[in-house]
Amino acid sequence: MIITIGREFGSGGRELGRRLSENLGFAYYDKEIITGIAERTNLSEEYVHQIVEHKPLISYPIHIGRSFYPVQDPIMKQNQEIYSEQHKIIKEMAEKSDCIIVGRCADYILKDMNPFKIFVYADMPSKIERCRKKAPENEKLSDKEMAQEIKKIDKHRAKYYSFYTDLEWGARINYDLMINTSGKDIRKIASFLTSIIKEKI
Amino acid sequence: MIITIGREFGSGGRELGRRLSENLGFAYYDKEIITGIAERTNLSEEYVHQIVEHKPLISYPIHIGRSFYPVQDPIMKQNQEIYSEQHKIIKEMAEKSDCIIVGRCADYILKDMNPFKIFVYADMPSKIERCRKKAPENEKLSDKEMAQEIKKIDKHRAKYYSFYTDLEWGARINYDLMINTSGKDIRKIASFLTSIIKEKI
Repeated sequence: MIITIGREFGSGGRELGRRLSENLGFAYYDKEIITGIAERTNLSEEYVHQIVEHKPLISYPIHIGRSFYPVQDPIMKQNQEIYSEQHKIIKEMAEKSDCIIVGRCADYILKDMNPFKIFVYADMPSKIERCRKKAPENEKLSDKEMAQEIKKIDKHRAKYYSFYTDLEWGARINYDLMINTSGKDIRKIASFLTSIIKEKI
Repeated sequence: MIITIGREFGSGGRELGRRLSENLGFAYYDKEIITGIAERTNLSEEYVHQIVEHKPLISYPIHIGRSFYPVQDPIMKQNQEIYSEQHKIIKEMAEKSDCIIVGRCADYILKDMNPFKIFVYADMPSKIERCRKKAPENEKLSDKEMAQEIKKIDKHRAKYYSFYTDLEWGARINYDLMINTSGKDIRKIASFLTSIIKEKI
């Protein structure tokens, strides 16, 4: 059984993934993916993390492969390799055992394995609150600035997802269950999801 | 506790509402709303049903109230009265006891009572299958024709919702939980929702 979790930034998707994996005894892949890519590409984990999490599109232009321009930038090539390794690693991990994967277009990459696809979202005040708790070092940011940052990250995620999958990120038809975490306790959500998944609804 | 269920046509929202009400012992309002409107407006239930379910927009133009044109069409006036009564009846019912209301912009009408807002959807093959089971008299329609009918009804629902609420029908932020019923047994979904609602997640 594979569970994928798409999520708006600050909506608690990563916490949900971790808690679900504890409840269900499933593998939870997150940093392991970065480590795996780094090992296989001989790049540093920091660099891989930076590419995968923070600038998927800048470093991975949309029209690659459709262009006749024969010379390829070495940085671009390296970044493509990172994505290609990520794709392979996610497949390998999913084939190994029951697991939970947050983000990374895993729902699409693993579509042939029929994963249970969750999407987690929340209203802006809840996301700001969650971000403040998780990263108190950003306390100098005003709520408005923080909201802008959150929107920017989600805009990237949406673009990355739609580039990779040709589907709309967060559009209901691409998921089995969509959960609004606004003002909710992720532990409680994890606990009811655990029962759903155990009963194989 | 108020539960509202928005739904794509053919996704099983009405069945879910009925089953949830049985499980939870909550009132379930559906035809009662039509009957109530008919009584108060002295119109036939058939007529009210026709207006409320089948042509909300044709009979209720968007720009009414914003126009300086002073003469009002009597049919238009009557239809406005129907909507206004529906609004009142939904509020009265929700104030009376715990209840479940399917459709009718109830999530918006009752927003001050903080309802638990569910949206139910499915892929087209599942919706067609469900419609065939529910209305075998439409067996002469091809799958393509049926899909067109389903899309048409949902387009109406979306327009009606957005006219009434200024919000986007089916957009995740307007709901607490969105459930894809494709290939799923509504009884099972009702049963897990029952536990969620009982535990007040």
